[in-house]
Amino acid sequence: MNILVSPNAFKGTLSARKAAAAIRAGLMKSELDCKCTVLPIADGGDGSLEVITEYLDAEIRQQQVKGPAGRTIRAKYGWNEQEKTAIIELAEASGIRLLKNRPLNPMKATTYGTGQLMKEALDLGAKKLYLTLGGSATIDGALGILDALGVVFLGQDQIVISNPLPSDMYLIRELDVSAVAPGLRDVEIHVLCDVNNPLLGETGARVFAPQKGATEAEVIRLEKGLTHLAGVIRRQFGVETGAVAHGGAAGGVAAGLYGILGATLTDGASQILQWAGFQDALKRADIVITAEGQIDEQTAYGKGPGVVARLSREAGKITIGLSGFVRANDLQFKNFDMVLPVTNASGELSIAFANTAKNLRRTAFQLGQLLHVLRKNPRWLETS
Amino acid sequence: MNILVSPNAFKGTLSARKAAAAIRAGLMKSELDCKCTVLPIADGGDGSLEVITEYLDAEIRQQQVKGPAGRTIRAKYGWNEQEKTAIIELAEASGIRLLKNRPLNPMKATTYGTGQLMKEALDLGAKKLYLTLGGSATIDGALGILDALGVVFLGQDQIVISNPLPSDMYLIRELDVSAVAPGLRDVEIHVLCDVNNPLLGETGARVFAPQKGATEAEVIRLEKGLTHLAGVIRRQFGVETGAVAHGGAAGGVAAGLYGILGATLTDGASQILQWAGFQDALKRADIVITAEGQIDEQTAYGKGPGVVARLSREAGKITIGLSGFVRANDLQFKNFDMVLPVTNASGELSIAFANTAKNLRRTAFQLGQLLHVLRKNPRWLETS
Repeated sequence: MNILVSPNAFKGTLSARKAAAAIRAGLMKSELDCKCTVLPIADGGDGSLEVITEYLDAEIRQQQVKGPAGRTIRAKYGWNEQEKTAIIELAEASGIRLLKNRPLNPMKATTYGTGQLMKEALDLGAKKLYLTLGGSATIDGALGILDALGVVFLGQDQIVISNPLPSDMYLIRELDVSAVAPGLRDVEIHVLCDVNNPLLGETGARVFAPQKGATEAEVIRLEKGLTHLAGVIRRQFGVETGAVAHGGAAGGVAAGLYGILGATLTDGASQILQWAGFQDALKRADIVITAEGQIDEQTAYGKGPGVVARLSREAGKITIGLSGFVRANDLQFKNFDMVLPVTNASGELSIAFANTAKNLRRTAFQLGQLLHVLRKNPRWLETS
Repeated sequence: MNILVSPNAFKGTLSARKAAAAIRAGLMKSELDCKCTVLPIADGGDGSLEVITEYLDAEIRQQQVKGPAGRTIRAKYGWNEQEKTAIIELAEASGIRLLKNRPLNPMKATTYGTGQLMKEALDLGAKKLYLTLGGSATIDGALGILDALGVVFLGQDQIVISNPLPSDMYLIRELDVSAVAPGLRDVEIHVLCDVNNPLLGETGARVFAPQKGATEAEVIRLEKGLTHLAGVIRRQFGVETGAVAHGGAAGGVAAGLYGILGATLTDGASQILQWAGFQDALKRADIVITAEGQIDEQTAYGKGPGVVARLSREAGKITIGLSGFVRANDLQFKNFDMVLPVTNASGELSIAFANTAKNLRRTAFQLGQLLHVLRKNPRWLETS
């Protein structure tokens, strides 16, 4: 039997590599006679840098940059000298995880530090630049990145708006790209997105801005600002950025880089699975196990384990998800045959007690589903 | 496929019947084509009364009695009028659960209330009396029960020791059984024990007394008292109670009733499984699912799910345990093919985070074990 183990990272806990190793260790410790292929994955969200640098054979470097709230921090990025390829995880320089317990301030949070990492890559002679967008603290439409790369923002009467913040977006009349960082015109920028929301419209800023802490009034201001900026880009570069798929990723960073720098926007999970050689490994697998801190109905929308499950189901494989946490009432998960929470103990006994019947029912349901799919696909019974 | 669902009660949460129903509901909700036989079980511990009364077709009655700390409480017992059979759960009248948050006092806690329930059964004309011993708050060697049934305890100079407590045991010189409750000489008393520890010796009082809150000094006093009482019984009734299997159950109640009233001591779980018709159902089963609040290494020692698992393994069936809680490091469980915790969420995230790798490994191990045993027993694949 061939088992393909392809977990995401468990945010804040375990890298995808370590999660895969733990799952493999459990299977190997069991009496099951199986071959275990380990392919850690990512989707552009937290933990992507480590996974991508491994598949692209890059080394991890560090650089001092400006964090989302302006403090100096050390951020990691990946560099493959031979291929002149940089891998930058936006969350390393401008991520929500860097704010820890401090309040979010989407009117001020900047992607400037991510731009500094990109500038560093250009200084190294980068020909390709992969930028992952998950976990941002920002809704600045890429202003900070562009600022760090030498784009100059002009307001009324050609006055320079220095250090532009999200709250300044509506002041911008024109972008001066004459003095951008050397190499920026020649580098291929590939943006790996973890969501496919556009910048504007029903599933745009009004959906993602509140997730980054914007109040109702701020959401309106930010949406107006992003709409205004999209208008400037349309007039100056002839590119429509409001509706492009993935444009809303990282608070509009994707749309901004697409419109101004000609970056390509792609689905992070699909790109990373391609680097991992997932489809080849999938062909040989009987059972696929993926995992993440929380598998829920959002998982199907572009998250790594959701893409794994979709491809696995399309290939007719048995698909099992292991989740750090599962809602007591959640029974079915799109494209999964079985989803088990891995939690071994409940902290709050009164809550555990209240959920006992639901939990028994849910666990029995999952076992039933597994037995069902195993019986329908007797091929896994053959010894390898 | 035939699945036999035989859980214990989840102490303080779900009856065995409700736990079985929840498991069945989950299986039925899944796509698995299976027949589900539900046989709730018990082992003499908490929840036994409900299970036994169902299998013995008895009705539940209530009676006011004296609780373990002397307060008046209402206790349930079972009665089958046709068979003149009573089912008494000691924990209902003398259980640790009745003390709630009050401190345990093993030098004072009494089984008197259980004796009152037995007396009530004799007044109803009981010919058979089943007494379950799990969950007691007491280490009184059955003094309270015997007192309630009319046994008179005599000390030095034939002085009557009224309302004898554990602290008085060493004063007893003789038992006067001339005035015991009518019917006591004719009733068959069957004691269903949840442990097989003897009254005395290495695995006797010095093991079970601390579990009921006795301090080191109290353990010594109680062991001396129980040894003294066993001597009185030996001299007066010619019965050796110190080493008999199960004698230590409920703080020596089993030994006392065995020595003085000629009660038979049996393993609770085995007796209850027999009433349930477990062996017949087992023959027809492909997979057996049992459950309890906590499955651990103690489960193999006479607890209901442990006996289910042993019989199931002996019969060559696939055996799955569902547990409210599992220790993160526990991988293998005697006679079980797979044990899954049913907890869906961890209260304390820092603890969950610390255990993530262990939990992934453990869950993958359990899946591996299940797949292994399913592959080795392809009979379950046949459609029913």
